[in-house]
Amino acid sequence: MRIDILSLFPEMFKGPLSESIIGKASERGLLDVGVTDFRQYTTDKQNHVDDAPYGGGAGMLLQAQPIFDALADVQQKTAELPKGRVILLDPAGKQFNQHVASELAQEEHLTFLCGHYEGYDERIRNLVTDEISLGDFVLTGGELGAMVIIDATVRLIPGVLGNQNSAPGDSFSTGLLEYPQYTRPADFRGMKVPEVLLNGNHQLIAQWREKESLRRTLHRRPDLLAKMELTSDQRHLLSDIRIEEDDSDM
Amino acid sequence: MRIDILSLFPEMFKGPLSESIIGKASERGLLDVGVTDFRQYTTDKQNHVDDAPYGGGAGMLLQAQPIFDALADVQQKTAELPKGRVILLDPAGKQFNQHVASELAQEEHLTFLCGHYEGYDERIRNLVTDEISLGDFVLTGGELGAMVIIDATVRLIPGVLGNQNSAPGDSFSTGLLEYPQYTRPADFRGMKVPEVLLNGNHQLIAQWREKESLRRTLHRRPDLLAKMELTSDQRHLLSDIRIEEDDSDM
Repeated sequence: MRIDILSLFPEMFKGPLSESIIGKASERGLLDVGVTDFRQYTTDKQNHVDDAPYGGGAGMLLQAQPIFDALADVQQKTAELPKGRVILLDPAGKQFNQHVASELAQEEHLTFLCGHYEGYDERIRNLVTDEISLGDFVLTGGELGAMVIIDATVRLIPGVLGNQNSAPGDSFSTGLLEYPQYTRPADFRGMKVPEVLLNGNHQLIAQWREKESLRRTLHRRPDLLAKMELTSDQRHLLSDIRIEEDDSDM
Repeated sequence: MRIDILSLFPEMFKGPLSESIIGKASERGLLDVGVTDFRQYTTDKQNHVDDAPYGGGAGMLLQAQPIFDALADVQQKTAELPKGRVILLDPAGKQFNQHVASELAQEEHLTFLCGHYEGYDERIRNLVTDEISLGDFVLTGGELGAMVIIDATVRLIPGVLGNQNSAPGDSFSTGLLEYPQYTRPADFRGMKVPEVLLNGNHQLIAQWREKESLRRTLHRRPDLLAKMELTSDQRHLLSDIRIEEDDSDM
């Protein structure tokens, strides 16, 4: 996959793009990332890329020209690739989630436009195929949002995660939150690992995990349960959980 | 504000913490960030911090010991401060949003525990005051999530944003998405700025902005509108929008 990032702060990407999974994917030739500083494309003599909003108001807006010209240049330099998706990070965009990540992971080419300052000229939206929001909160720029989307997406590309079994078992991929996990020691400063995990009975372990996954989802994200089609086993486990917890309330 | 970050990948933070708003807040003395590599605290002879899960299964889990000991050391070194919030980034945590950001912005001390590998020993949850999720997607580690939360939070600390008017006008702080904004030139390659923004009538401009803010929210995030108590003016504008759009559909 080729990823292009247009940003005024290319230095922000140095650590995140070279460390961790993204760095490993690049070393293995599965990913090729280019960061373009769009300030280099401004036709403004003082190198400004922002100006005051028409109609008044606080803050400065990114102008259209530097981003239009930077994107045109990036697309010309990558002309052998499909243009793919051009993504604007924006709080008004569609909510990013695991489903969007798996869609993006199918693409050959992603380009991220990272805004900064208080906003951007509306005409920049004409360039993009997708407007994506990380969630209902405001960041100082699009850079961190782009990094999050890249991380969540790249780890789904086949061959990127060392252990092919890891991605499908995650929270959300089963529709449920993950069950509690434990590693050595069995007794850490008086806090003990549940007996069932130590006894080697794989059927009991699988059942305990399914039940605790359901329990955590019931307590923390009942909205996820409501969206799922539960199996008959899952319905029985949920009813066991409700009975147990009613008893313990008394 | 003091922020401590416990991570296996301290290099990831170099760009993001020195550039942009976080770097500026640190230079102005409004923010003091420490990144601790918790691998330095492991008692394992090979410096491992992870081990296989009890009960079997793919992937490796972070062990409790290095994180317990690193956090104890960080809290001892910052003993003059309140312990504040100890935050675990986890997909099963409560959803981060602008309200959580403004709560965190009131604190004197935040500590982030960044997991990596496929998960962590459940007993680590005993250390934390808050489990926070960025959204319904899975990242390779907690680092990017911590950076996002720090960015959204730090920009709300008084004095951090140069323009004090910027933060309250954002998307979500009014309950609505932001209206379209434009800056020079008025005609960019045939794409024109709406006339109303050029005529200097501040009352008409304010009304246009309110209406376009409502329109964008209606189209993209009707859930936000449903949660708001609309003023009588806003109800009239919404009804105008619905009439206009019904007409244009015919």
